[in-house]
Amino acid sequence: MSVLPITSQQGAAKLGALIGIGLGPGDPELVTVKAARLIGEAKTIAYFAKRGRVSHARTIAERYVSEGCEELPLLYPVTTEIAFDAPEYVSSLAGFYEESAERLAAVLEQGRDVALLCEGDPLLYGSFMHMFTRLQQRFRVEVCAGVSGMSGCFAAARQPMTWGDDILTVMPATLDEDALAERLAAADAAVVMKLGGNFPKLRRAMTRAGVISRAIYVERGTMAGEKIMPFAEKRDDDAPYFAMALVPGQGRRP
Amino acid sequence: MSVLPITSQQGAAKLGALIGIGLGPGDPELVTVKAARLIGEAKTIAYFAKRGRVSHARTIAERYVSEGCEELPLLYPVTTEIAFDAPEYVSSLAGFYEESAERLAAVLEQGRDVALLCEGDPLLYGSFMHMFTRLQQRFRVEVCAGVSGMSGCFAAARQPMTWGDDILTVMPATLDEDALAERLAAADAAVVMKLGGNFPKLRRAMTRAGVISRAIYVERGTMAGEKIMPFAEKRDDDAPYFAMALVPGQGRRP
Repeated sequence: MSVLPITSQQGAAKLGALIGIGLGPGDPELVTVKAARLIGEAKTIAYFAKRGRVSHARTIAERYVSEGCEELPLLYPVTTEIAFDAPEYVSSLAGFYEESAERLAAVLEQGRDVALLCEGDPLLYGSFMHMFTRLQQRFRVEVCAGVSGMSGCFAAARQPMTWGDDILTVMPATLDEDALAERLAAADAAVVMKLGGNFPKLRRAMTRAGVISRAIYVERGTMAGEKIMPFAEKRDDDAPYFAMALVPGQGRRP
Repeated sequence: MSVLPITSQQGAAKLGALIGIGLGPGDPELVTVKAARLIGEAKTIAYFAKRGRVSHARTIAERYVSEGCEELPLLYPVTTEIAFDAPEYVSSLAGFYEESAERLAAVLEQGRDVALLCEGDPLLYGSFMHMFTRLQQRFRVEVCAGVSGMSGCFAAARQPMTWGDDILTVMPATLDEDALAERLAAADAAVVMKLGGNFPKLRRAMTRAGVISRAIYVERGTMAGEKIMPFAEKRDDDAPYFAMALVPGQGRRP
């Protein structure tokens, strides 16, 4: 899968390609060799960030970015301050994604490629997907796979997750308590993402599902300040949004 | 997480460390920068392979292996020829894993590190896990996360998989038809692994679950000979063991 500019079907103009680049779970050394090459070759990089904050993706990519590379930060108007299902959150984000896609399109229309830096795996709950769906009809879009945030947490916690016929369920802690408890009880192995303010609800759901004693809490997996502990031993309710909970499977193992 | 030999608690002997290294989905460029470094530094590498076949892990790692590196191939006595739940399969494999662990232990006891090469993510359905559980009490074991096979397939197929509150279910096609149909029907997004001879059963389960029209078939994702098509358009039943089926989620997207 080479990444080269293409000529549009009409032969009229040479359009740039959008390249979604997975950066892995946080440790800059867990960037793939391909991603490191693509970032180094990029003349324009883009990344999402919360307004007023340093972009986490940009930080991971730092050592691979070439001198003189043009940067296009895409700054979220809101992230976790408003409830996810609030109408103003959805409409505000939709407008932001439209505007961001047009900013990328403006560069691509000049025949320049854009490398969009993405934390983890670009196609698992990633902001990149909102650009992908908006631009894929107009431009060539490539995706460079990355180590997912959860794979980083499995390794950081050194937890074998799925054995034999185990079924793995990956769920966001944004679900309501009943849904979380039900899914956790039915899962052989589980990953719960997006903890943040959902932590007390998740603790109740874990307890109800009877899995809390084998769950692991992982904060900043693979990064400085990494914190790993049995979930049941975490007494406070403070958890960053990107913290995860793991429930390792116990399936067939010769 | 540095990887250096440690001195045992007793101070008697310097023991080597076992390092499970995820190599990603198949494209050698999707190896992480860290894995490339660890493989290059390794004086002893080990890998699983089917007897009489080239090790896929060894092939992916080829360009990163240093000259003069010692190699320890661990050759499966059986893999897919006998049913997974047959008693002779389980006992044969158990013996093989015991013997393999002892071969690794013999090197580690000499104070030499061993880099165990693993396809995909070492902690998701990985053979490495059988060595990990057998050796972690005796030796230091480190894990270097890799791009999972499924993340490689998401990128190869360019399929955004999970949006917003979508729940992702990862299941092996070795499950019985009813279990597959039930889990597929209940999933927002799904990944089915280990297709091989389970393909006809999976097709029936996909049809029963009503998800076949949005499922994607991926064979050799990110590698030469990659084949990607709508699942419903695959007419034959031939699928390699490592082929996957993806059912992308359709959740909330601003």
